[in-house]
Amino acid sequence: MNTFGHSFRLTTFGESHGTALGGVIDGCPAGVVIDDGFIASELLRRRDGDSPSSLTTPRKEPDTTEWLSGIYEGRTLGTPIAFAIRNQNCQPEDYEALRDCFRPGHADYTWQQRYGCRDHRGGGRASGRETAARVVGGAVAKLWLTTQGVSIHSLRQGFEVKCIIEGVPAGIGNPVFDRLNARLAYAMLSIPSASSFEMGENAGDWKRAAGDYPDQWIAGGEGATLTATNHCGGVQGGISNGMPIVFHTGFHPPVTNPDGMVCRMADGSLKAVAPHGRHDQDHSTRLPVIVESMAALVLADFLCLRVKRIDELKIEN
Amino acid sequence: MNTFGHSFRLTTFGESHGTALGGVIDGCPAGVVIDDGFIASELLRRRDGDSPSSLTTPRKEPDTTEWLSGIYEGRTLGTPIAFAIRNQNCQPEDYEALRDCFRPGHADYTWQQRYGCRDHRGGGRASGRETAARVVGGAVAKLWLTTQGVSIHSLRQGFEVKCIIEGVPAGIGNPVFDRLNARLAYAMLSIPSASSFEMGENAGDWKRAAGDYPDQWIAGGEGATLTATNHCGGVQGGISNGMPIVFHTGFHPPVTNPDGMVCRMADGSLKAVAPHGRHDQDHSTRLPVIVESMAALVLADFLCLRVKRIDELKIEN
Amino acid sequence: MNTFGHSFRLTTFGESHGTALGGVIDGCPAGVVIDDGFIASELLRRRDGDSPSSLTTPRKEPDTTEWLSGIYEGRTLGTPIAFAIRNQNCQPEDYEALRDCFRPGHADYTWQQRYGCRDHRGGGRASGRETAARVVGGAVAKLWLTTQGVSIHSLRQGFEVKCIIEGVPAGIGNPVFDRLNARLAYAMLSIPSASSFEMGENAGDWKRAAGDYPDQWIAGGEGATLTATNHCGGVQGGISNGMPIVFHTGFHPPVTNPDGMVCRMADGSLKAVAPHGRHDQDHSTRLPVIVESMAALVLADFLCLRVKRIDELKIEN
Amino acid sequence: MNTFGHSFRLTTFGESHGTALGGVIDGCPAGVVIDDGFIASELLRRRDGDSPSSLTTPRKEPDTTEWLSGIYEGRTLGTPIAFAIRNQNCQPEDYEALRDCFRPGHADYTWQQRYGCRDHRGGGRASGRETAARVVGGAVAKLWLTTQGVSIHSLRQGFEVKCIIEGVPAGIGNPVFDRLNARLAYAMLSIPSASSFEMGENAGDWKRAAGDYPDQWIAGGEGATLTATNHCGGVQGGISNGMPIVFHTGFHPPVTNPDGMVCRMADGSLKAVAPHGRHDQDHSTRLPVIVESMAALVLADFLCLRVKRIDELKIEN
Repeated sequence: MNTFGHSFRLTTFGESHGTALGGVIDGCPAGVVIDDGFIASELLRRRDGDSPSSLTTPRKEPDTTEWLSGIYEGRTLGTPIAFAIRNQNCQPEDYEALRDCFRPGHADYTWQQRYGCRDHRGGGRASGRETAARVVGGAVAKLWLTTQGVSIHSLRQGFEVKCIIEGVPAGIGNPVFDRLNARLAYAMLSIPSASSFEMGENAGDWKRAAGDYPDQWIAGGEGATLTATNHCGGVQGGISNGMPIVFHTGFHPPVTNPDGMVCRMADGSLKAVAPHGRHDQDHSTRLPVIVESMAALVLADFLCLRVKRIDELKIEN
Repeated sequence: MNTFGHSFRLTTFGESHGTALGGVIDGCPAGVVIDDGFIASELLRRRDGDSPSSLTTPRKEPDTTEWLSGIYEGRTLGTPIAFAIRNQNCQPEDYEALRDCFRPGHADYTWQQRYGCRDHRGGGRASGRETAARVVGGAVAKLWLTTQGVSIHSLRQGFEVKCIIEGVPAGIGNPVFDRLNARLAYAMLSIPSASSFEMGENAGDWKRAAGDYPDQWIAGGEGATLTATNHCGGVQGGISNGMPIVFHTGFHPPVTNPDGMVCRMADGSLKAVAPHGRHDQDHSTRLPVIVESMAALVLADFLCLRVKRIDELKIEN
Repeated sequence: MNTFGHSFRLTTFGESHGTALGGVIDGCPAGVVIDDGFIASELLRRRDGDSPSSLTTPRKEPDTTEWLSGIYEGRTLGTPIAFAIRNQNCQPEDYEALRDCFRPGHADYTWQQRYGCRDHRGGGRASGRETAARVVGGAVAKLWLTTQGVSIHSLRQGFEVKCIIEGVPAGIGNPVFDRLNARLAYAMLSIPSASSFEMGENAGDWKRAAGDYPDQWIAGGEGATLTATNHCGGVQGGISNGMPIVFHTGFHPPVTNPDGMVCRMADGSLKAVAPHGRHDQDHSTRLPVIVESMAALVLADFLCLRVKRIDELKIEN
Repeated sequence: MNTFGHSFRLTTFGESHGTALGGVIDGCPAGVVIDDGFIASELLRRRDGDSPSSLTTPRKEPDTTEWLSGIYEGRTLGTPIAFAIRNQNCQPEDYEALRDCFRPGHADYTWQQRYGCRDHRGGGRASGRETAARVVGGAVAKLWLTTQGVSIHSLRQGFEVKCIIEGVPAGIGNPVFDRLNARLAYAMLSIPSASSFEMGENAGDWKRAAGDYPDQWIAGGEGATLTATNHCGGVQGGISNGMPIVFHTGFHPPVTNPDGMVCRMADGSLKAVAPHGRHDQDHSTRLPVIVESMAALVLADFLCLRVKRIDELKIEN
């Protein structure tokens, strides 16, 4: 299913070369001011990367967000927020050579096995362009999270992104299955080309020796001063402890070879094919905003779902 | 929530030192033969580890599975399968010293923040003992998966477990959010002390150079002979390609220090405490069966949910 | 949440006087031919009613469906199908008098209590106009159901609608909570102004005497000839028996008084207000297509979710 | 699936003549005092009916609730509350004659079509005895609701039960699909033999003339004094308005004929069979506590899910 989240939910739609991409945000609290400039700047980070780069794809969509519902007089209504981003500059003929063949490393073959049909143009629904809808959803989540004192930022380290979430109170997350770290892992591995995930202030913190791993308490500390180190990345037993939440996501390199590739045809034979469409040569600068967007969706969902504690529920016996 | 899965679902219950641990398996197909010997052997792997070891906790529960429903004349009925494992040899006085203090590295503090109360005995619901219910659920899932030609095994490498799933047909998983690899990551990070997850035949395969990463097709190959390598671990675009599904899960070391530890008290002060209860010194030999059990639950869920392909749905226009 | 269904899911969005109404259909099988003429005719039934009538609202939106995704070369792709219906002829000034007051019998007061804010224009999200998105979703569901041999029609009887679903095989539905009749009741009561629901060939069949109620078997019968009568309406123990599924839904009359009404103001005082906007005087002719659409969504969802029977799952022991 | 609810969830298990019936309550807030006497009295109402009656089945199970988890020092922990009720006095031989035949009016035939197998003894999972687990779940929900000021009672009127829920604040429920009245209808139609549902202070209120239907405001009123009448039954636009919530559920008569019946055999032939097992001759006195239990589960779920209003979410812009 194309929905992420339980309480603060994003449903995305759209094929890379169809009419539009977009989404529906359901469960966003009422009253959030929608800052169109911020949303446009997040989309720009996705398109052009965090740093100027000549390596990303030259496709230059304006990526303008058209709001269809859920906003009135500049604020969210608490009703579903639908938005669309029109696809432009589609040249389907570019992809005609790919209609009957499956590229190595792509989702062409698995998609065909799953659905029995597909829109082969530019990856169709499996295109990285689908992440534009995630970025809009994540940006709206960030706007709400800001009102709750939560901020998210990230650093690019090779094909790895370190993400830091600050301001999350202790007690967020569920024990057993639906742990905060498990949901973050689920969110990160849902990003195209994501291959690894780990919790911790530093990559590899979990490999420390037993005596050196547990974060020791600071007397009287709380929130970001609770413990002297943050090897666990701010989550214990699946629940936040008030320290910054820190995790690392690794991505495999681009799988489209600009020099062409050997594809599998429907009959199982192989054929050398020279790609013509627009494809990234380096998507790594685009990754941070997508990582942050998915993290924002996870946190917004948990903060909306937050179960009131015993004293808040006014049980008096 | 204490439920894992959408279609083949496991709900677990129980505190470490309460009356019983157990679970309800809902959505298991009817007709599966329940092999009690297999289930007992899986529970033994969880209790004593895959290899003889004197380092695991000396707690010797029999871990006998009592079936409460869902089985008739030795086969599943398609109705909920409830089971309980009684807790024995509980000595609550062992834990009285821990009632008002939060150990470093444990879930004590976060649980208190989440619920405002807790069962402090042996970790309560947050105890690793809860995984016994996962192992029973996973064993039932394995029994069904075997009838579908799917097998799961694992290898322990330090505090890392490599898991291999064979026999999964191409086309299993969902694109976009609910990817097969994302669900595996979610399942793995839900295991107590799990800290990292990565896809791929070998740990670090995703760090290869761009030209060296994509798995190349074998002419005419399919299933386990589809590609020459398996750097992607059998999943492309979130969907299985028929190759073995391979992933690695990393776990942090035990956080209970047998020499005692400095705990945080309810008022924020620190206090040195000597632990008395039963605690693992090395839980790594127990991990493989838990990893396999969660993987079995993920695969059983996806195979039950499998959306019929276009031709199977008999659309004739 | 604004989503209906588990497997074949419709998410709707839009306020009555916002930019657009619309929805996302997620889980529709791939390969369904989209018949735009049929969808337009269903929308016309919703706007003008099943029979010519001068009593329905004179608002004359074209209600054109704009497809945004999920359709390629005239067939569904198996990906989310997003659509929008633009709102036209909005005259917000019509509703300015209603900004601070709550009409009797409407959702104005409860919505304000729920969200703390609302779009007061024409009922906003609570407007009956939202049902246009349900009709599009239901029409797509019908197109798929037709390929499965299932047809749905209905009869208007006062403010009551009788709905008949033919061609549903025996064995559809879940026992215990998620019964087919329970889901139909849930779907029907979700329609604005719906007030009652009952199963059975004839309204009141369930009030028969004990000896006269059970439907007696026809020797060798199956499908629509299974039983001599259909007092149960084709569902036993929550599961279809192959007979036509028949139920009745009752609706309360329109609550907008064309002569004006006494509204409650934000401070609790009362005030006589003359309505200016466009409002139905008789919505009953519009109801059948909405009833059918929701029934189609329920059936499409169950048929997609259908659990394979023991023999189909190839368990061989 | 055998789970009811989203946030306050009850999963039930058990066949009529298996080892035990029971359930898992997940999402109950921590700190609720479990009153075993109250739970026993609710089970007694289910077994013997609200009034002394010699017509109900003579089966005399003690129906003792065994708590397996989730309760510590007399209060709920916020973790899953599992419970079992052992089946006693099972005489499987009573039902041997029913192994290969489908009784008229029962779920035998549909269950076989759905699963391809069944436990034929006493209805198996489809037995009315399954409602014992609902009553325990509902009783726990009532214990929590009482701390929130909500009370539930009901009146029996023929085979119809009128249910009144008092103390629900305005603003509970969701608009569009997941309306409070839709969820109540879903809950009621999930009860064995339930056939109809309607909202309103009096049965048939929705059939009033247009001008006479809308409930008129009382100046300055709120809660139970909001409107002069309660034709809508306390729900407008799917959301509570603070008035008592009132609805009616109708049930068809018992379908087991004490004089025997004509059953359908597996080969489609008919055969007269004299029943031997224990069966109700009049289940109507047992219905009120089941209706109340399901209503309690719906309300507990909504109150736990309650979305905080704009001002509570501290959005300050």
